[in-house]
Amino acid sequence: MTDVSALMLDMGRRARAAADALRATTPDARTNALTRIAKGLRAAEAEILAANARDIENARASGLSEALIDRLALTPARVEGMAVAVETIAAQPDPVGAEMARWTPANGLDIARVRTPIGVLGVIYESRPNVTADAAALCIRSGNAAILRCGSDCLESSRAIAAVVAPAVAEAGLPADAIQLVPVPDREAVGAILSGLGGAIDLIIPRGGKSLVARVQAEAKAPVLGHLEGLCHTYLDAAADLDVARRVVVNAKMRRVSVCGATETLLVDRAAAERLLPAVAADLIKAGCELRGDAETRALIPEAAEAVAADWTTEYLAPILSMKIVDGVQGAVDHIRAYGSGHTEAIITTDAEAAERFANGVDSAVVLINASTQFADGGEFGFGGEIGISTSKLHARGPVGAEQLTTYKYVVRGQGQTRP
Amino acid sequence: MTDVSALMLDMGRRARAAADALRATTPDARTNALTRIAKGLRAAEAEILAANARDIENARASGLSEALIDRLALTPARVEGMAVAVETIAAQPDPVGAEMARWTPANGLDIARVRTPIGVLGVIYESRPNVTADAAALCIRSGNAAILRCGSDCLESSRAIAAVVAPAVAEAGLPADAIQLVPVPDREAVGAILSGLGGAIDLIIPRGGKSLVARVQAEAKAPVLGHLEGLCHTYLDAAADLDVARRVVVNAKMRRVSVCGATETLLVDRAAAERLLPAVAADLIKAGCELRGDAETRALIPEAAEAVAADWTTEYLAPILSMKIVDGVQGAVDHIRAYGSGHTEAIITTDAEAAERFANGVDSAVVLINASTQFADGGEFGFGGEIGISTSKLHARGPVGAEQLTTYKYVVRGQGQTRP
Repeated sequence: MTDVSALMLDMGRRARAAADALRATTPDARTNALTRIAKGLRAAEAEILAANARDIENARASGLSEALIDRLALTPARVEGMAVAVETIAAQPDPVGAEMARWTPANGLDIARVRTPIGVLGVIYESRPNVTADAAALCIRSGNAAILRCGSDCLESSRAIAAVVAPAVAEAGLPADAIQLVPVPDREAVGAILSGLGGAIDLIIPRGGKSLVARVQAEAKAPVLGHLEGLCHTYLDAAADLDVARRVVVNAKMRRVSVCGATETLLVDRAAAERLLPAVAADLIKAGCELRGDAETRALIPEAAEAVAADWTTEYLAPILSMKIVDGVQGAVDHIRAYGSGHTEAIITTDAEAAERFANGVDSAVVLINASTQFADGGEFGFGGEIGISTSKLHARGPVGAEQLTTYKYVVRGQGQTRP
Repeated sequence: MTDVSALMLDMGRRARAAADALRATTPDARTNALTRIAKGLRAAEAEILAANARDIENARASGLSEALIDRLALTPARVEGMAVAVETIAAQPDPVGAEMARWTPANGLDIARVRTPIGVLGVIYESRPNVTADAAALCIRSGNAAILRCGSDCLESSRAIAAVVAPAVAEAGLPADAIQLVPVPDREAVGAILSGLGGAIDLIIPRGGKSLVARVQAEAKAPVLGHLEGLCHTYLDAAADLDVARRVVVNAKMRRVSVCGATETLLVDRAAAERLLPAVAADLIKAGCELRGDAETRALIPEAAEAVAADWTTEYLAPILSMKIVDGVQGAVDHIRAYGSGHTEAIITTDAEAAERFANGVDSAVVLINASTQFADGGEFGFGGEIGISTSKLHARGPVGAEQLTTYKYVVRGQGQTRP
C-alpha cells in the first residue's frame, strides 16, 4: 500500500467515526461551528491571502493560463464573500431531524419520515479555493462528515481555509474529523475517493468541468451526485411578450456565459419568429453575442452564421447562441428531449396553458416560465448556497443545498404491535 | 447484433416514447388503467392458471425444488390476491404532479417543487408471477414506463398477466408500450437491461435474492435501487416491558422467517438479561426456533448453541436466532453499526429517552420502537404495495411504493425576471 492510499483509508475511517458522532450533535452546535468559521475566515484573511499568493506563484511558474489564475485568486473581497456565504448557510434552517411526514396506517403504528444526514461525502473539486469553505459549510449544516479534495493548484489556499475550519468545528463541540481536507496534491487521492475508501464514502460529489465529472461518473464505486453539462434552452412562444423576450434572452445568454445555467440554444415558435426574433437578435449582437441559426432564422437574421448539427449538442460556455425555428410548444419540447441535458429550460409566453404544457412536457431539473435560465442557482433558490446542480434524476435534482444533502429514515413508534 | 439485443433495444426505444407520452396522461386515466387490470385479472383467471400450470410442468421437468415451485404456483386465491393488490394501489393518491414545496425567495420568483415520474424503470425479478402485476401497477400509479423481466420459470404465467395489462393500459388511454414484459427467457435480456439499453433506462430495480441484487449492483450501467440483505436486529432495553418483549420478539423472528424484515439477531441489555431473556428464549424454543448465543447468553439459556463470528453477519432467513448481551443503547447501536445491513432494527423499551437515542444512533432505513421488525413492508406502511425495500441511502430508503418511484422538478414562474 502506498503512503497516499494508507493516508486516504485512514481519513475514511476517521470520517466514518465523525459521521457517527455527528448524529449526536444539535442544530445549535452546527450553527455555532458555522458562525465560528465565518469569524475565523475574516480573522485569518492575511494568512489566507498569503497562502493564496504562494498558490498563484506556483501556478505562474507552472504556466497556468491567466483565466485559471483568476479563478484561483483570492482578494480581501473574495475572503469576505466566503465568510458571508458561510453565514448565509448558518442562517438556513437545519434540515436534520425535520419530520417530512407522519401518519398512522390501519395497524396503529405511528410512522414518521425523518431527515437524517447521508453520512460521509467525498467532494472533489478544482482550483476554486472558496469551494473549500462552501462545501465545509453545507456539509456541517446537513450533519455530514466530508473529505474534501481540492485541485492541487489551490492546495495552499485550501489548507489555510481548512486551518480555520478545523478549530471552529472542534470548539463548537463537533467531531474534529467532521471536515477533512486531503493534505497532499497527489492525483492518487482522487482515485482513492472514487474507490469509496473501503465503503467509508456514502456519496461522491464532483464539482468542476465536464471532464472531471465524466471521470468521476465512469470510475466511482460509490454513488455520485453531479451534473455533466448545462445545455439550456430558452423557447419564445407565439404568445411571448416582446419586452420580456428581449430582456430575458439577453440575460439568459450573456449575464455570465461560463455558468451552467446560461442558455445555449434559443428556440422560436414559427408563428412569432418574424415578430420576436429581429429585436432579440439585435440585442444579442449589441451585447457581443455570436449567432448561429438554421436556414429559417438566417432568413430573418442575416448576421447569423449557419448552425451545423454540432451546434445543437454543444455547451458553448461562450458568447455564442444557436437559434432554431420550431413548431409551437411541442416542437420546442421535442427539440429539448432530443438535445437537452436535463438541466434548465425556459419558456417566454403570456399563454398560461402553453406554459403548463411546456413545464409538463420538458423533463429537466428546472423549468422557468418568463424568467432567465441563469436563475438556476442554489443561492437564487434561497438555499443559502449550493454544492452544485444535479442533472441526475434520482435523489436530488437541480440546485443541491444542505437539505438535498440529507436522506431520511422511518421512525416507527408502537405499543407492542406484532404483525398478523 | 443478436436477435435478443435488437429486441431489447427496440423495447427500450418504445419504453422511452411511452414514458414521454405518459407525461400527458391524467391521474384518472392511470386509475382507470389499474381498475381495468384488476377486473381483467379476475376475468382471465382460467387463462392465468392454465399458463401457470405449464410453468409448473416445465419447472418439475427441469427439476426445480418444491419450495421454488410453491413460490411459482398460482391458485384462484392468489389470482384474487393480485387483483386486490392492484385495486389497493389504484386507491392510493396519485403522486405525479403533487406539489412538495412552494416558496418565493427574495428575487420574487414563484418556485414549486413538483413530483414527476422517473421515466423508464427496468424491473428484474425472479419466479414470482405476482410481481408482474404488482410492478406494473406501481409503475402505472407513478407514471413510469416499465420493462419487466421475470424469471424464466414464470414466463408463461407472466405472459398471461401481461396479456391482461396491455389492453387495460391501452383502453384507459395510456400508451400501449407503458408496460412491456420481456417475452423471451434468454438470460441475455438481463444483461441488456443492465447495460441501460442505450440510455433508455433511468432506474433498475432488482427484486429477488442476494445473488441477483449483487449481480445487478455490480454490472448495472444505470442507477440501481435495491436491497442486498435484511440483517435486522431487535434490542431489549433495560426498561423493556417483559410482555411486549415476549410478544414482539417471537413475531419479529418467527412470523415468517424468509422475509427480509425478520429479526436475525437479538441484542439484550446486560442490565435486564436475567429478567427478560429466559422467558423470551423459552417462547422462541417453543415456537421452533434454534438459538445461538455468546457466552453470557448461554449462561442464562443452556439450550442455546455457541454463536461464532459468522452468526453476527448471517441473514439466516430460517428459524435460527443469534443472541448477544450488550451494554445499553450504545452497545446495541455499536453492534448494529458494525454488523447491520441498514434495513430495519427495533428497540423494546418503556424509556422514551432510550428509544430516541436508539432511533437517532441507528442508521437504518426503518427503526421501530416497541413493534415487530416484520412491519418493514410497504403494505403495512400504507403504501398499497411495494416494489421492494431499499437499503440504499440515496433517493428512497425503506419500503418503495409509488411515491418513492417518482423524482421532482422545479417549476419556476416569473414575470420577466432577469438575474442581476
